[in-house]
Amino acid sequence: MFIDDTIAAIATAPGEGGIGIIRISGERSLSVAEEIFRSMSGKLIKDYKTRTLVYGNIVDGDKVIDEVLVAYMKGPNSYTAEDVIEINCHGGFISVKKILELILSKDVRLAEQGEFTKRAFLNGRIDLSQAEAIIDVIKAKTDMAHEVAQNQLEGSLSNKIKDLRMKVTEVLAHLEVAIDFSEEDVEEITYQTLEEKARELKNEIKKLYDTAESGKILRDGLKTVIVGKPNVGKSSLLNSILGENRAIVTDIPGTTRDVIEEFVNIKGIPLKIVDTAGIRETEDVVEKIGVEKSKESFNSADLVIMVLDSSRQLSDEDLEILANLENKKTIVLLNKTDLEQKIEEDKIRQYVDNDSIIRISALKHEGIEEIHDKIESMVYKGSIKNTSSLVITNSRHKDALLRAYESINDAISAIEQNLPYDFIEVDFKNIWDYLGYINGDTVKEDLLDTIFSNFCIGK
Amino acid sequence: MFIDDTIAAIATAPGEGGIGIIRISGERSLSVAEEIFRSMSGKLIKDYKTRTLVYGNIVDGDKVIDEVLVAYMKGPNSYTAEDVIEINCHGGFISVKKILELILSKDVRLAEQGEFTKRAFLNGRIDLSQAEAIIDVIKAKTDMAHEVAQNQLEGSLSNKIKDLRMKVTEVLAHLEVAIDFSEEDVEEITYQTLEEKARELKNEIKKLYDTAESGKILRDGLKTVIVGKPNVGKSSLLNSILGENRAIVTDIPGTTRDVIEEFVNIKGIPLKIVDTAGIRETEDVVEKIGVEKSKESFNSADLVIMVLDSSRQLSDEDLEILANLENKKTIVLLNKTDLEQKIEEDKIRQYVDNDSIIRISALKHEGIEEIHDKIESMVYKGSIKNTSSLVITNSRHKDALLRAYESINDAISAIEQNLPYDFIEVDFKNIWDYLGYINGDTVKEDLLDTIFSNFCIGK
Repeated sequence: MFIDDTIAAIATAPGEGGIGIIRISGERSLSVAEEIFRSMSGKLIKDYKTRTLVYGNIVDGDKVIDEVLVAYMKGPNSYTAEDVIEINCHGGFISVKKILELILSKDVRLAEQGEFTKRAFLNGRIDLSQAEAIIDVIKAKTDMAHEVAQNQLEGSLSNKIKDLRMKVTEVLAHLEVAIDFSEEDVEEITYQTLEEKARELKNEIKKLYDTAESGKILRDGLKTVIVGKPNVGKSSLLNSILGENRAIVTDIPGTTRDVIEEFVNIKGIPLKIVDTAGIRETEDVVEKIGVEKSKESFNSADLVIMVLDSSRQLSDEDLEILANLENKKTIVLLNKTDLEQKIEEDKIRQYVDNDSIIRISALKHEGIEEIHDKIESMVYKGSIKNTSSLVITNSRHKDALLRAYESINDAISAIEQNLPYDFIEVDFKNIWDYLGYINGDTVKEDLLDTIFSNFCIGK
Repeated sequence: MFIDDTIAAIATAPGEGGIGIIRISGERSLSVAEEIFRSMSGKLIKDYKTRTLVYGNIVDGDKVIDEVLVAYMKGPNSYTAEDVIEINCHGGFISVKKILELILSKDVRLAEQGEFTKRAFLNGRIDLSQAEAIIDVIKAKTDMAHEVAQNQLEGSLSNKIKDLRMKVTEVLAHLEVAIDFSEEDVEEITYQTLEEKARELKNEIKKLYDTAESGKILRDGLKTVIVGKPNVGKSSLLNSILGENRAIVTDIPGTTRDVIEEFVNIKGIPLKIVDTAGIRETEDVVEKIGVEKSKESFNSADLVIMVLDSSRQLSDEDLEILANLENKKTIVLLNKTDLEQKIEEDKIRQYVDNDSIIRISALKHEGIEEIHDKIESMVYKGSIKNTSSLVITNSRHKDALLRAYESINDAISAIEQNLPYDFIEVDFKNIWDYLGYINGDTVKEDLLDTIFSNFCIGK
């Protein structure tokens, strides 16, 4: 792939902020910047050492557009590994827009989503799993998700894939020898060795693959629906228990914007509470949305939390909802344990496991820690010990691992049947290819387009 | 005012973007940065020339938080005129938050809103009107508003105020002499000179003051209500005429977020369309909100655009709304001029001026340019010739000018009555003070707090 044009985009989030950054990448970055920039010192950008923040104005002819700091980063020591210019201007909408438009008028093309990172990949500065980690770092909803993405960015997954492919290459080399010298009767040892190596590989791939379920939740959040009749305590539950763990975003010191406030951080797990507004505004979500609607929201949920008032008997409505919880990850909270208990727990246990039932008193703040523990154990199942372990968070990587896993099973079955080496070789070549999807070694350009279209502009 | 602590904040807009910036200002900036930063080269930040972007990691002990570029700007050559560190990290919520939290754990205080700019002012790098221009540059809704703020940032208002105060100082010096030598009979000439100088000043202050109405609209937008019965063509008007001028923000190349989409740019005037959603979603705003509600929305509006179907006769409802348009800036659009005309224009003219009535055909796209011209002439009344002229956009400046204007009138009346010089001197001292409010020369600290609390965090 040949990259010959110069691209530009706004690299900071849109909105009112102190500083906005416009990034230019490509051969003409410096010359375009020199054209629109007048330093206070009167010197040119190229007269400064690279990576120096040069103070001056962006000008359109004689008109000053904004007061800025400009830095030139000469390739390959830059984000894209190309010549890069970064212009730090005043934040807000107009400054960045006007400067970008001025740049685009100089025969520079607007960067596509993720195109800077794509170039970093195409120019070999990072592999594909690292490129994908960058967007995960940016989109992370919790510290834990951020840490896992950060590890991947540093190359934890890249190294693992490199290691696995190295092992596949060894087997392939082995097979080549066996094929070339097949007349010379060296088979028996080789089939046994092959099987050992294949099973070892299978285990490693399986182990990695098994982290994907938790990894996906870590990255995308656990879609959670809270249901229950009016006055069972959903709202106070949300306020008192989840409430103090809210604010994944809103607890950024000094910002008060509820940007993605529907996320709640439970032991590092981002819970995406569906219809929180509904729960908060009215007490009667079930009544409001009706039983039918409840069922619908169950279908799209990763976790259903049902709140019941344990001081009352179960209603038909309660039972109908319980009947629909089958095959869902469910937590049933028996609230108001401080009052006289009238609820028929036996009936509930007909629908949900006993250890999914937690007795709480939102009022007395009892049983709350249990909810957190329960959610943690449901999600992680012990598969994520700590964030420094390697976790598959990306469904694309998961799919590639699944295909590699299927191929290794094919290979093992072929080996067990003592099939000809070239049959087995095909399977191992497939494994090599599928693993290469992950680091981008064997990925096709159209897939690249799909991957990078999930990025934000300016990255 | 003594500034002894070191402050930090996120300087970019919150949200998902490629790059986020954390800014630190104060004596301990460099030492805190050295503590949490490990460069790839192994060198310290202080080993580099100032203003160099140094590549490395932000670390908390052994744990890598993010991959960053760090720049050290030694005071006074920095935004605050203090030692400043800027850390460019990955955008999104978590990276900036974690880095900021790490910095705040090192005995650095979270910056208050506008505190960086406040320090730039307190340290004498910019005056108060320039500081206020910075937030206007950031919050500008149109290119024109941006340009006016940019001029102010460059010192257009500062220079004007300096110039006016210089003239006041001359008068004061004159008065001093006259007071000191009052026994020596030099009065007559002085009164005349005084009056000339006072009238000259008055004219200049008046001229500046008169730009404030347009300036406010330029900065804050013209709050516009569009009313009319169902099917008169409000929606298509908004789509076809205003629609193509929408997107003050949304036309930032490559961004699609409708952040402040209620603003529409008409010849540089930001029109803030009230209840656009209502107009678009249903055709029957009047019916929906009712006549009473219409009246309410009139009260808060700077401009009312009433759309009537000229192919029908006026209804009682129409007339009732027309009756309420008195004392409002109003444009009445007679739509559907392509059909047979049945509307009673005479009746309309009982309520609104003839030149506020514009005949259009939204269908045939006729009369559209007239709407734009009408809005422009209503707003500017010729007082803003072009954006390079000095415009008062800030109501605080307007108030200060009004007080200065009142004092100059007092002075003139005192001069006309040949009152003693020390009476007149008081008035001129007031003028000097009031003008000093604008550039911050005579402003009190509690007012400063109010002013900077309108800034965003991180600026």
